Amino acid sequence: MGGNLKRPLLLSAAAGLGLAVSGGAWGAESLDDVMKRRGLTQKDVLAAAKTYVPTGKRDEFVVFSSGGQSGQVIVYGIPSMRIMKYIGVFTPEPWQGYGFDEESKAVLAQGRINGKDINYGDTHHPAISETNGEYDGKFLFINDKANPRIAVIDLADFETKQIVANPIMKSEHGGTFVTQNTEYIIEATQYAGPLENEYVPLSQFNEKYRGAVTYWKFDKEKGRIIPEQSFSVELPPYSQDLSDAGKGPSHGWSFTNSFCTERYVGGIEKGRPPFEAGCSQKDTDFLHMINWQKAEALVKAGKAKKINGHDVLPMDVAAAEGVLVLVPEPKSPHGVDVSPDGKFIIVAGKLDTHTSVYSFDKMKALIEAKDFAGKDPYGIPILDLKKSLHTQVSVGLGPLHTQYDSKPCVVYTSIYVDSQVTKWDYCEGKVLDKISVHYNIGHLMAMEGDSTKPKGKYLVALNKLAIDRFTPVGPLHPQNHQLIDISNDKMELLYDMPLPLGEPHYAVGIAASTLKPHIRYKQGWDSRTDAKSPFATLAGREHVEKKDGVTHVYGTLIRSHITPEIVEVEEGETVSFHFTNLERAEDETHGFAIRGFNANLSVEPGKTVSATIKAEKPGVYPYYCTEFCSALHLEMQGYLLVRPKGMQAQEAALKEGQAYTEEDYGKQIKTNTDTQAVIDSVVKFITERNFKDFPTVVSLVEDATDQLNFAADAKKKTEDFSGKKDWQNAVLWAQQWFQYQVKAADIGLRAKTYLEQNGAKVVK
Amino acid sequence: MGGNLKRPLLLSAAAGLGLAVSGGAWGAESLDDVMKRRGLTQKDVLAAAKTYVPTGKRDEFVVFSSGGQSGQVIVYGIPSMRIMKYIGVFTPEPWQGYGFDEESKAVLAQGRINGKDINYGDTHHPAISETNGEYDGKFLFINDKANPRIAVIDLADFETKQIVANPIMKSEHGGTFVTQNTEYIIEATQYAGPLENEYVPLSQFNEKYRGAVTYWKFDKEKGRIIPEQSFSVELPPYSQDLSDAGKGPSHGWSFTNSFCTERYVGGIEKGRPPFEAGCSQKDTDFLHMINWQKAEALVKAGKAKKINGHDVLPMDVAAAEGVLVLVPEPKSPHGVDVSPDGKFIIVAGKLDTHTSVYSFDKMKALIEAKDFAGKDPYGIPILDLKKSLHTQVSVGLGPLHTQYDSKPCVVYTSIYVDSQVTKWDYCEGKVLDKISVHYNIGHLMAMEGDSTKPKGKYLVALNKLAIDRFTPVGPLHPQNHQLIDISNDKMELLYDMPLPLGEPHYAVGIAASTLKPHIRYKQGWDSRTDAKSPFATLAGREHVEKKDGVTHVYGTLIRSHITPEIVEVEEGETVSFHFTNLERAEDETHGFAIRGFNANLSVEPGKTVSATIKAEKPGVYPYYCTEFCSALHLEMQGYLLVRPKGMQAQEAALKEGQAYTEEDYGKQIKTNTDTQAVIDSVVKFITERNFKDFPTVVSLVEDATDQLNFAADAKKKTEDFSGKKDWQNAVLWAQQWFQYQVKAADIGLRAKTYLEQNGAKVVK
Repeated sequence: MGGNLKRPLLLSAAAGLGLAVSGGAWGAESLDDVMKRRGLTQKDVLAAAKTYVPTGKRDEFVVFSSGGQSGQVIVYGIPSMRIMKYIGVFTPEPWQGYGFDEESKAVLAQGRINGKDINYGDTHHPAISETNGEYDGKFLFINDKANPRIAVIDLADFETKQIVANPIMKSEHGGTFVTQNTEYIIEATQYAGPLENEYVPLSQFNEKYRGAVTYWKFDKEKGRIIPEQSFSVELPPYSQDLSDAGKGPSHGWSFTNSFCTERYVGGIEKGRPPFEAGCSQKDTDFLHMINWQKAEALVKAGKAKKINGHDVLPMDVAAAEGVLVLVPEPKSPHGVDVSPDGKFIIVAGKLDTHTSVYSFDKMKALIEAKDFAGKDPYGIPILDLKKSLHTQVSVGLGPLHTQYDSKPCVVYTSIYVDSQVTKWDYCEGKVLDKISVHYNIGHLMAMEGDSTKPKGKYLVALNKLAIDRFTPVGPLHPQNHQLIDISNDKMELLYDMPLPLGEPHYAVGIAASTLKPHIRYKQGWDSRTDAKSPFATLAGREHVEKKDGVTHVYGTLIRSHITPEIVEVEEGETVSFHFTNLERAEDETHGFAIRGFNANLSVEPGKTVSATIKAEKPGVYPYYCTEFCSALHLEMQGYLLVRPKGMQAQEAALKEGQAYTEEDYGKQIKTNTDTQAVIDSVVKFITERNFKDFPTVVSLVEDATDQLNFAADAKKKTEDFSGKKDWQNAVLWAQQWFQYQVKAADIGLRAKTYLEQNGAKVVK
Repeated sequence: MGGNLKRPLLLSAAAGLGLAVSGGAWGAESLDDVMKRRGLTQKDVLAAAKTYVPTGKRDEFVVFSSGGQSGQVIVYGIPSMRIMKYIGVFTPEPWQGYGFDEESKAVLAQGRINGKDINYGDTHHPAISETNGEYDGKFLFINDKANPRIAVIDLADFETKQIVANPIMKSEHGGTFVTQNTEYIIEATQYAGPLENEYVPLSQFNEKYRGAVTYWKFDKEKGRIIPEQSFSVELPPYSQDLSDAGKGPSHGWSFTNSFCTERYVGGIEKGRPPFEAGCSQKDTDFLHMINWQKAEALVKAGKAKKINGHDVLPMDVAAAEGVLVLVPEPKSPHGVDVSPDGKFIIVAGKLDTHTSVYSFDKMKALIEAKDFAGKDPYGIPILDLKKSLHTQVSVGLGPLHTQYDSKPCVVYTSIYVDSQVTKWDYCEGKVLDKISVHYNIGHLMAMEGDSTKPKGKYLVALNKLAIDRFTPVGPLHPQNHQLIDISNDKMELLYDMPLPLGEPHYAVGIAASTLKPHIRYKQGWDSRTDAKSPFATLAGREHVEKKDGVTHVYGTLIRSHITPEIVEVEEGETVSFHFTNLERAEDETHGFAIRGFNANLSVEPGKTVSATIKAEKPGVYPYYCTEFCSALHLEMQGYLLVRPKGMQAQEAALKEGQAYTEEDYGKQIKTNTDTQAVIDSVVKFITERNFKDFPTVVSLVEDATDQLNFAADAKKKTEDFSGKKDWQNAVLWAQQWFQYQVKAADIGLRAKTYLEQNGAKVVK
């Protein structure tokens, strides 16, 4: 063979710092050639070097971005900006089997509204669970603005485990934000509505439409929200917007801002000015301060009223008890962001040029002294703006959202209208730097930038428009997340990342090292209930069982066959397939798809999932593994046969298309013997080395051992049949034995290569 | 303000070739620092420089990749490997409104099986439409393996326009491949089944189960498949696999390979060896050669029989007429790939170590001379393997798929078991180079590498396993597409790209310059029928109309209001919302979401789409624009009110939450006058320059002019109300006038910046 896998270094390391090594063997380009050919500046090359992650290396941070109306969460790496996963949350997604297997359908069914399946969501603000105000990397929460709901995603397997529908809201926006030990997940209304599920004409908007903040109780051990221990605080019909939870000294409080405190109701179809005119007239709106710890105590003391079975603390009670206080804030703010030390709250007025830095200490003192500037029409006390402020800073037109750096006092604010990010000092109240972004930035995100310990280093601008940034892909454009280096005094743009699906609003970035996801499930695991599946099936225990009018198929999947391979039922039967993936090897996912039914499963190693279908029409329905799981994946197939009603099952034996002889048998045995010699040499190579020092190799060896055990089983069957001179079955089982040998050899060779490339030593 | 947008060059251009310029202002890192900090080799930096696309620059090639069981198509750029879009094809996807608006639901409904919605597909092999064997960039086709179907995507807007369900197949795989002028789109069976939709026991597998190749007639003008002009050729129950169409001298023929010509039927649940054992016993399977031009003529001559209303040419007729010929091919081949000149066909035997290069000339001569080596059990003539071959080359264990370089005779074959790509010369029959990939490569793809004019440069390895390549994201891993530089003699690995959603099988890469997608639709356009929508609505013509028991809402969307803002209906009414996006600006998409109904629209500029809901329960249902389309996007809202059955509509006027005075009016007018001064100065700046030479600016000016016209309308209303001393309405309309001014100013400033940065000249 002419190939040569060992390539001399194209660029000699001895060439040192000057990278413009030209030519070399095979006429390859130098860096200088590449820059000229591709029109790259030196700054571009620097940005490329700061973001490129070579094969086998890992990203430093992981970002969880909302996907907007795609109803999903997007996971990507920093600095490479490569998307690692889309997690199905509110929208069914067949690659993951999400909403296609019965187990995940049950999760989606928790999110029904008025009994109806809602097959999308408008995800806005993800939050990572916190311990002492730091990201702990255990759970991710995300809201659905359109159909007020919250989802819980377990970061052990990146799967959605729970969806709760808000019992009183008709619209939301200000979720999810978590308190500093994830006691509660915060969700705030956006567009006001009656809290009851009833018709109220808009002429009663001021009197009967209401906002609210819901505090969802979270059980960290179980990893689930407990709806019956959750409660809400009733609010005026001011369109509440974003929220944040207090930290340290402000722990126990939460902050929610608002727009349209004018309580204007549009009606452009009747000649009235639209919402946008009437909702942006006043110079200030209201920041809502809520003492949720006190509210929790009041609810426990029975001060809440039940609405739709849910505890709601009325706003008159909240106001009277000092639970709810308002503070004016510049016009139509978006972000409200508590500082890492919990002492300041920064609000950006979207229709203003300022950010306002509120002092929690000052506001707390005003509240304690009952030093109020007035009351709103609902009797809620209002603090004086100037007395509450630490400072205000002019940062640009359309400030939106603020994130904290690891450096003290340093923050970044997104500037929507100016399409910029402003870096500024909130202690001194001065602007430090600005950078242009492309285009119209919404939120922005620094690494762990809303925790008590921001990590600095990188900032992502979540731009709402891409316009001309990318190769055109039709009228619907991707959005553009731009990566900005914030290590130095001046911000530097590093990378433009198109978002291929979804409209992200906010994102959270966490150090990759904090995440510890599993690579496999315990055998027979229901990943949605986090418990052993009642349908878990062991190898060799596959069977079909009729129960309560349902034909249950207890099946297994392994390289490269589905057990059972043939299932025959009668027209009209309900068939429930349950498959357990018997693999232990990392990334050995199998799939299951069957023609003409909406059944499509993704079965990761160890998982058990189910697909229930109604066999309505007689016919032939092939099924197969959808994953390219081995060289013989196309042979990982089967047939569901649906007999017409009343027809007798036909037990006639299969007439085989091919007959085999003793000569064929001899040939196959020779192949197997040769293959075994290869395997033995590989086993020798591995076991003579310190392979146990390499976890990757240890799991490859486990996997190969599994395959060799299967091979031994098939070998036994082969010998049984050859002993009976049944050459047909002897040849077929010898082939199966060979198939397991090939899989073992494939894995073994991969382990051998790994040991060679990673400096394993001979130990005996 | 402390910001300074003009940053001195961090790396002076004068520093020349040695990029290791250290330090500089603000302590920024040199390239050398970055390499040390990030552990990059010089080879890594070279790869980074070859793949990095700076902001505002474009990718050179666009790839369309199948998404496997995600049912979508993935669009990404080369060399950056950034994903630009996921196109909804067989699976509903709410971000695009696909399967959520009535127009796209009608497309998905075309793909029903037995009357049932199938909400996923297993997409495998995309094909771009061809003219003279070259990619013309007009249409993309993709198959669904699970529920045999084909979809047509228009590359004018990257939307799915048509789905056709195969009338006779129960499983497929070998689609889509197009003939050299896209006369036909080829789809081939995978797992055999009865061609009729009926139950046939597996004991009659050899006699009654069949494969087929369907030739779908495509109308390039209309951009649609014509089912009634399409036909199939019946084939034996050999699991047909991939296909390719002839080119040049082999035009008029198509080639389909197969595995399991043993016709083995498994049954491991009954103790029989599984499919994988029985299907891989023989040393050779069959390449099917089909003269589709002759088949087309025979079908037109009435030689086909109708099965399920579809023309099927029986295989005995096909064999007798010389339409169908078999050629042995090494064991379980996957790819069958016709050379750019149409003279050779390369087949890779997946369970073999060889690629086989067949000579079309030799095979044609054998057929013409009726020089057959025998017949298969169905009477189909078989050519002699050796007489048909040009050469065979040993390329590695598990060769799978071959792609052609722009260099003559040079090809690349993916090697599954060895996890390598082999570069070899098919004229001389020798291996040139090998490169390792990570891991277990399936298909591979060179730029336009299956057309008559391959473009070379880059190769993508579509690896099936990622295992340890990326930051862990749970048991379900992304796949890994590796970009390989093939410009030089030695292949060089450039980039590892995770696939975050879906399991791609094959992909096609086209020069980006060939694609000419639209950035907007004609006003009032139904993008799924490619015609003016019957529900198109002009600005000012919004209305509600009851017809045939349905309440039709003819609405419009524009920054930043929805017309109508309030819709009231009675319980039980069916409401059909039709929205037209009035924008012309690039990327100004609006959305529409409403609580509790499964209605979610994506409305790109010019588009008209519909959402039909049943107002089953009385209540309040807020709706809003899901896109962050302007600073006031949150105010782009409305309410659907559902009155209990029989309740009278309440026409009571709204009591406004806020009252305005003459003083408020004066203040607002001053703001508007000041804003107008800014606008005037920007208009002056633009019109004094040669802005018409910049298409980007011309469209910004158009957009700003639209906004100023709207502002003029609002100004007139303001003045009408102030004339009547109605300060309430005067203030509100003055605010609306201001909102349009802000939008105009925003756009104008963007145009001004563009002119400044792109060297516009003063012309008057």
